[in-house]
Amino acid sequence: MLRVPFPELAATLSGILVRTGFDPARADHCARLFAETTRDGVYSHGVERFPRFFEMIRNGSVDIHATPERVQQLGAIERWDGRRGPGNLNAWSSMARAIELSSERGIGCVALANTNHWMRGGTYGWQAADAAMIGICWTNTLANLPPWGAPVAAVGNNPLVIAVPRPAGPVVLDMAMSQFSYGALATWAQSGQLLPVDGGFDANGNLTRDPAAIEASQRPLPIGYWKGSGLAMVLDMMAALLSGGLATHQIPIEPLRETSLSQVFLAFNLAKLCPPEESARTADAIVESVLASNPGGVRYPGEQVLKTRTENLALGLPLREALWAELRRL
Amino acid sequence: MLRVPFPELAATLSGILVRTGFDPARADHCARLFAETTRDGVYSHGVERFPRFFEMIRNGSVDIHATPERVQQLGAIERWDGRRGPGNLNAWSSMARAIELSSERGIGCVALANTNHWMRGGTYGWQAADAAMIGICWTNTLANLPPWGAPVAAVGNNPLVIAVPRPAGPVVLDMAMSQFSYGALATWAQSGQLLPVDGGFDANGNLTRDPAAIEASQRPLPIGYWKGSGLAMVLDMMAALLSGGLATHQIPIEPLRETSLSQVFLAFNLAKLCPPEESARTADAIVESVLASNPGGVRYPGEQVLKTRTENLALGLPLREALWAELRRL
Repeated sequence: MLRVPFPELAATLSGILVRTGFDPARADHCARLFAETTRDGVYSHGVERFPRFFEMIRNGSVDIHATPERVQQLGAIERWDGRRGPGNLNAWSSMARAIELSSERGIGCVALANTNHWMRGGTYGWQAADAAMIGICWTNTLANLPPWGAPVAAVGNNPLVIAVPRPAGPVVLDMAMSQFSYGALATWAQSGQLLPVDGGFDANGNLTRDPAAIEASQRPLPIGYWKGSGLAMVLDMMAALLSGGLATHQIPIEPLRETSLSQVFLAFNLAKLCPPEESARTADAIVESVLASNPGGVRYPGEQVLKTRTENLALGLPLREALWAELRRL
Repeated sequence: MLRVPFPELAATLSGILVRTGFDPARADHCARLFAETTRDGVYSHGVERFPRFFEMIRNGSVDIHATPERVQQLGAIERWDGRRGPGNLNAWSSMARAIELSSERGIGCVALANTNHWMRGGTYGWQAADAAMIGICWTNTLANLPPWGAPVAAVGNNPLVIAVPRPAGPVVLDMAMSQFSYGALATWAQSGQLLPVDGGFDANGNLTRDPAAIEASQRPLPIGYWKGSGLAMVLDMMAALLSGGLATHQIPIEPLRETSLSQVFLAFNLAKLCPPEESARTADAIVESVLASNPGGVRYPGEQVLKTRTENLALGLPLREALWAELRRL
């Protein structure tokens, strides 16, 4: 494992993007979002995913020149067409627009159709929280999760992000609807360990903690069984209906062609509702009450991110040597 | 088990409320919401809960004369003070106001402080869907769920409702953050059966399907383990911050004194975003794609409600004889 300084990594990625024809300022922003995700410890959705993103530029799934276009406005809700632009840039500008809308209207909602994989969903939660907003966003995905009661995938794992600003460290929930992602299953399988809890079904339809058995059956579990299954379904419905874009069942199944996704971004202007000191006190008291239930044994969502960020900025961002070598060839 | 006709049950409950001093029109509405919940098959939160509601009127937790009061408006968001009025009436009027706000602003949000238990959360999802709106609402509760990693309760099971209108039958998700409610655990324990999946920890801290062991340990599981735990926490934060009301850790632990809850109601004006025939097609196609993954083996959230409603209206609402006798003594 190498340790690469953040600026060097971001510049390397930006350089690659510029060579694909990206506008330089957009390349910088796009590269920074990838590098920040690795900086924050969400390795599966940061630089590790960059080669796949590069491949989707090459195969035409991502249009590097496209920027989102507003197609409809209805008070505090707007529909935008992502025009298959880079997913992280589209998502960033959508949350930025939701924040902007909320400054006059208290709340802002951008429903984005025809976009691409947003990489780490938490990015747009941190974006909202850093602007002192409560942020909610979610995306649909290709069908990769069997609904409860079915043996084959028919819902997406539709990551849902909820972020609450807090001066001492925002609380940012970033969760997919599957208990373990395929990436996590692969990591556990390589380690030779069992999952800490049931993660899916084996070939015989029994619940199992064996990650390899779940990879083989392609039957990971929704969180909370029937509950996460239902939640995945309604998130897809809302994303498709509000944006006018595609639903999970219409998205190509092949991961390298997973495009034209639908997403929703909501911002709530907390700062205009209540003095910042008051909301900080309320947020702190809730965090403390939860942590006090087992000091040292309980974490709040996002807590680990700030620790990892600090460590990675100090030591350099951890990168597989093979990945670094691959990036330098792109 | 008796079968009581819907109008008779609603009139009986209304009569009881009027005798407590309720305004007759409000008594009718409140009684109807209880009876409709039983009609729809959500027995634990319908008439079964009426004696507890009655007791909370008696002990002063519920103020039957109080109506919600708007305390702040910021564009499409409003803060209301529920003044400890009847929880179901407060929630109903809050979703009605969110719907009203969304007719001009595309989206409406009512954050309600100082209210009481809303009984069945799904009621306000159906309310939105019946008005052709997408509705989202949630409530906080007293601390009744250990966060992941802790042995004692410090988050609420904070039911979350998401409702999507559909002419053929709305999709209404109504889920608490615990995998099984205490009510469900009691029912399973009485039946002598194991839970279908792990529902909590036993006294030794092992995951178990034994409902009685979980009742004894008071350690039910959040849905998706660490994920539902985090979701419960951010829902509480949003409810307290947006409404300016109490958070879970401030709510009295005693069930008969569980008052001054915080709730959030969101309505999205789908009908103004897109022609109803188009949204009906989109919604139908998603429902059909999910059901097709295992015909007869998969259900969508809310599907069972319409079947149960039809049956109960035809046959009368099922009621325990002892409960009916108790109601007639109130």
